[in-house]
Amino acid sequence: MVHSHILSVGDLMKASETAIVFIEFQNDFCKEGGALYDVVKEQIALQRTIKNAADCIEKARGRCLTLIVPIVFEGDYRDAGCEGVLGPIHMNVLKAKAFRKGTWGGAIIDELKPTDKDIVVEGKRTLDAFHSSNMDFLLRVNCIKHVAFAGFLTNVCVEGTARSAYDKGYKVFLLKDCTAAMSAEEQKYVEEKFFPLVGEVLTHDEFLSRLE
Amino acid sequence: MVHSHILSVGDLMKASETAIVFIEFQNDFCKEGGALYDVVKEQIALQRTIKNAADCIEKARGRCLTLIVPIVFEGDYRDAGCEGVLGPIHMNVLKAKAFRKGTWGGAIIDELKPTDKDIVVEGKRTLDAFHSSNMDFLLRVNCIKHVAFAGFLTNVCVEGTARSAYDKGYKVFLLKDCTAAMSAEEQKYVEEKFFPLVGEVLTHDEFLSRLE
Amino acid sequence: MVHSHILSVGDLMKASETAIVFIEFQNDFCKEGGALYDVVKEQIALQRTIKNAADCIEKARGRCLTLIVPIVFEGDYRDAGCEGVLGPIHMNVLKAKAFRKGTWGGAIIDELKPTDKDIVVEGKRTLDAFHSSNMDFLLRVNCIKHVAFAGFLTNVCVEGTARSAYDKGYKVFLLKDCTAAMSAEEQKYVEEKFFPLVGEVLTHDEFLSRLE
Amino acid sequence: MVHSHILSVGDLMKASETAIVFIEFQNDFCKEGGALYDVVKEQIALQRTIKNAADCIEKARGRCLTLIVPIVFEGDYRDAGCEGVLGPIHMNVLKAKAFRKGTWGGAIIDELKPTDKDIVVEGKRTLDAFHSSNMDFLLRVNCIKHVAFAGFLTNVCVEGTARSAYDKGYKVFLLKDCTAAMSAEEQKYVEEKFFPLVGEVLTHDEFLSRLE
Repeated sequence: MVHSHILSVGDLMKASETAIVFIEFQNDFCKEGGALYDVVKEQIALQRTIKNAADCIEKARGRCLTLIVPIVFEGDYRDAGCEGVLGPIHMNVLKAKAFRKGTWGGAIIDELKPTDKDIVVEGKRTLDAFHSSNMDFLLRVNCIKHVAFAGFLTNVCVEGTARSAYDKGYKVFLLKDCTAAMSAEEQKYVEEKFFPLVGEVLTHDEFLSRLE
Repeated sequence: MVHSHILSVGDLMKASETAIVFIEFQNDFCKEGGALYDVVKEQIALQRTIKNAADCIEKARGRCLTLIVPIVFEGDYRDAGCEGVLGPIHMNVLKAKAFRKGTWGGAIIDELKPTDKDIVVEGKRTLDAFHSSNMDFLLRVNCIKHVAFAGFLTNVCVEGTARSAYDKGYKVFLLKDCTAAMSAEEQKYVEEKFFPLVGEVLTHDEFLSRLE
Repeated sequence: MVHSHILSVGDLMKASETAIVFIEFQNDFCKEGGALYDVVKEQIALQRTIKNAADCIEKARGRCLTLIVPIVFEGDYRDAGCEGVLGPIHMNVLKAKAFRKGTWGGAIIDELKPTDKDIVVEGKRTLDAFHSSNMDFLLRVNCIKHVAFAGFLTNVCVEGTARSAYDKGYKVFLLKDCTAAMSAEEQKYVEEKFFPLVGEVLTHDEFLSRLE
Repeated sequence: MVHSHILSVGDLMKASETAIVFIEFQNDFCKEGGALYDVVKEQIALQRTIKNAADCIEKARGRCLTLIVPIVFEGDYRDAGCEGVLGPIHMNVLKAKAFRKGTWGGAIIDELKPTDKDIVVEGKRTLDAFHSSNMDFLLRVNCIKHVAFAGFLTNVCVEGTARSAYDKGYKVFLLKDCTAAMSAEEQKYVEEKFFPLVGEVLTHDEFLSRLE
């Protein structure tokens, strides 16, 4: 079948059919003193991730759907299960005492402080945000077709959530200047090797200029 | 293959492998003045749902996993999507202005007020709680095999979430005296016709006596 | 947000955005000698399920997406897991030796024999067909918004798959004269009590007259 | 909670709780003349992927669960949706006319020809095999805790399916000598950068020696 509303690379997109997803913009990742800041601070500085993401959400609010997706655990990690079940990357979070509800480290950074035009997506505990939240419901009922991704880590939760979006039938976009990985090598791998297999890689300004 | 740890009807279950899920014990359903109280108040009175559920959670806390699962929307329902997408039962919620974050109606009832031994599951927007929350993650990482269900409505969200749990490989139980439907006919239908196809129907005291 | 393409009850639907899902039209359910025919034969006769479904698929083929969804297990049920894990309704299937690949009982009935205009959906092992197949992928990539359901049992797999479709954001329809349950009571319950909460209940002719 | 049956790195695993998943061992990827052979043939030769995978399945059959997971489309790709919906990597498959049912290219290679000790998982159309098949059902009902992955492409479907398994609570393993990517760089990235975040990377002989 042929549908007339299909998007080709470079085409404009309806803003009302578009969402931008901001993953894990929390103090523990983004700020001096944050539990996991050290692993990502160099790339954040290099990419100007925070400044770009703040610019992006400010320009996008009210035009398209803006979803803010933190990862948080109970303060005592009682939601992290029996000993030994969670794998290496979750164990690092627990050892670092990162991403706990009600702590400064677990809070969303001031630069992306949610307003009543955003929706804060609750529940993320897994690499793929869809698997542990209501994000698919939110996108479906809001008639979203195009989803752009920002946040941390480019090759872990950002890529993982974008993979899942792709498999669910959304057009996916990586806002490269609003993401960061642990190293330039990993960032480059996602931008050049993986993401072009599933969608487009562009800056937040390039993406916003495609919305109508 | 034959595994030795399998459960037959009537067998004891390890409490550490068991969860009880309390669905939508919120003022809007359970209390005079709640937005949807009228549709379920007769059955709540008849079944003594609140008293039984309060007794159940008190006895279960600290022995097995206790999950409290409200359904809540943003105050302006901006997470409920474009006009006309949601179906009849969601439209009723919106018309009644029920289940809004930060309102008395959306709050969990005092009798089941969460403690730090419970986990409040966030995100439920759909009939099947698994589809819009991290409940499967919570059950997996806590090594849960047996899941009992309480709450509202017996034949809608309670049955729907139990169906999904069954399909995901959990043993499922209906705590009949801790649920309520809109009519005795619907309650009886679930207890006698549907639920025996997927699991066991019993009182909360009967269920708790099976835990070891 | 307000979208102009939204459907109200009674509105016409684009055939190209519509799918009809035919669940478990297999000899084991539908034909004399089938392993589970006895449990459903009275209702099949009363509803004229086979004749209506055959008429429906013939008229729908090539206009909208027609999906045929059998449930089949390996001949030795080696895909049915360790002893004791599956619940009551699956155990009945195993005891009856029903729905085995390569057997007459497991085959789709002649009246709904797939053509190259249909898609046979593989993998169904669970009550909700979405949970064990690629049906969500098929619906998404075919730009489907409206999904109608036919088949067996009205209150088990048909209702279960429709519940999941509803939660995934599709408009759902029950083709009542193309379904059957184990009793008139269960059929009536779904038609009058449950399904109106999530969608519309109508005959296949009424549904087809809504397609444009 | 503390459970005694938890696995640490290097520990033995029960073979009855273990599955090995062989992804896309089809002529189109693995054999001279296959539609996509050119993109992966160098790495296949370098890694000796086919020989190692054949050795692995032969040794594993009957000890642990062996799942063979092809990706196949209808011959006319009528299950691939409306024009323009599928993304770049699916479009490449369509352009190459790869992975069609009933063709030599879509068939599983002789070296991994399924026996009645394997289960062929049907339905895969997406990068993450879980999203379009009954694989989670198969793993759950077979009481599987540990899942090892082999196949193509290391950084696309293999990684994607392993990510999803991790999020679903399974222990995950990459059988590095039974996989291949489009380049040594991508293979190395998965082995050294990504996979250690979620599980263990080892040869098939190392993995099999861990089963008891």
